[in-house]
Amino acid sequence: MIAPARFIAFEGGEGAGKSTQARMLADALRARGLGVIVTREPGGTPGAEVIRALLLNPPQAAQTGGWTAEAEALLFAAARADHVAQLIRPALARGDWVICDRFIDSSRAYQGGAGHLGDQAITDLHLFGSGGLRPDRVILLEGDEAALTQRLAARGEAADAIEARSAAYHRAVAQSFADLADADPSGFARIDAVGSTAAVHQRIMRAIADLLP
Amino acid sequence: MIAPARFIAFEGGEGAGKSTQARMLADALRARGLGVIVTREPGGTPGAEVIRALLLNPPQAAQTGGWTAEAEALLFAAARADHVAQLIRPALARGDWVICDRFIDSSRAYQGGAGHLGDQAITDLHLFGSGGLRPDRVILLEGDEAALTQRLAARGEAADAIEARSAAYHRAVAQSFADLADADPSGFARIDAVGSTAAVHQRIMRAIADLLP
Repeated sequence: MIAPARFIAFEGGEGAGKSTQARMLADALRARGLGVIVTREPGGTPGAEVIRALLLNPPQAAQTGGWTAEAEALLFAAARADHVAQLIRPALARGDWVICDRFIDSSRAYQGGAGHLGDQAITDLHLFGSGGLRPDRVILLEGDEAALTQRLAARGEAADAIEARSAAYHRAVAQSFADLADADPSGFARIDAVGSTAAVHQRIMRAIADLLP
Repeated sequence: MIAPARFIAFEGGEGAGKSTQARMLADALRARGLGVIVTREPGGTPGAEVIRALLLNPPQAAQTGGWTAEAEALLFAAARADHVAQLIRPALARGDWVICDRFIDSSRAYQGGAGHLGDQAITDLHLFGSGGLRPDRVILLEGDEAALTQRLAARGEAADAIEARSAAYHRAVAQSFADLADADPSGFARIDAVGSTAAVHQRIMRAIADLLP
């Protein structure tokens, strides 16, 4: 019997090292002979990438203050629906592992928890848009807030509409992620993201060992 | 006491004369000294117009077949949420009448009924995105299918992604609109859209007479 393809999502705040660790995990899985695709949210497909651009740079934000929280949540759900239907489900169906930089739990932590829309509303949108697809394992990268902020600043990137929100908002996001993980200990692996990339990678490999063929 | 501002939506299939009749109604209300704005869906605000463009011309539709039905419904709900928050509610709050060319009942008829997503799902998205805002009266323009198709063809416009769907789909839309109207006789006015624009306008004026100050 062929081992089933697995769906792994990386979650956490800005600057936690999600995309670096996603690539390192993909390389490690490919070295074992597995088919792997790495993707990200919002985005991942042509349609979802166009929606991503609208989310990060709202049209005429200066006049209107950007999207309402509800419109933003609907756009994230639309982008995810496209990503799941056009890329993630087909990849899993042909036996590839899928590693995704952010997925539904980002919407739950940012819009549902920190954004006060509530977890039920966000979960309902995901059920409608994407059939409620869950990762086989969520790797939650957590770290010292100050260290992560410093790492982000060192990149020298301009902040987008979501990164620019207040420190209190980002603390609320981190707490929401922790709460989601605590409520689903078999679905999430809470990983200490402080340390060398190699050390963090080893922690991640241990956290998905039970899923490997 | 100042008479309340009213929200009137025009609904019906392609080519039924909605935008012409919306303008004629606005002119008649302005002639009575009322403040009126005319808007349309999808669109009506800078954010919603950008989403409209994505809906009518899906990115890379040739490769992917366009948006899934669920992604499309989420995009419509996002556009409507922006339109309601940034334009419709503020206009009503300052005492202007709002006349809208298509609103939630188009989503119910096209995506919910003809598109098989179901009325409850579409209504739930509207409740989430726009607080479930309903027009004070929906003017449903109905007519002889063949005559309306001819009127549309006479315009010589290229069909967009939704107009290009099959005749059976558009018949299902017309039936869905009729069913929605029959289920809410005080909310809807079914108007015979066959005849001169002046004659149809007079029918519409009679159908909203009870809402005038």
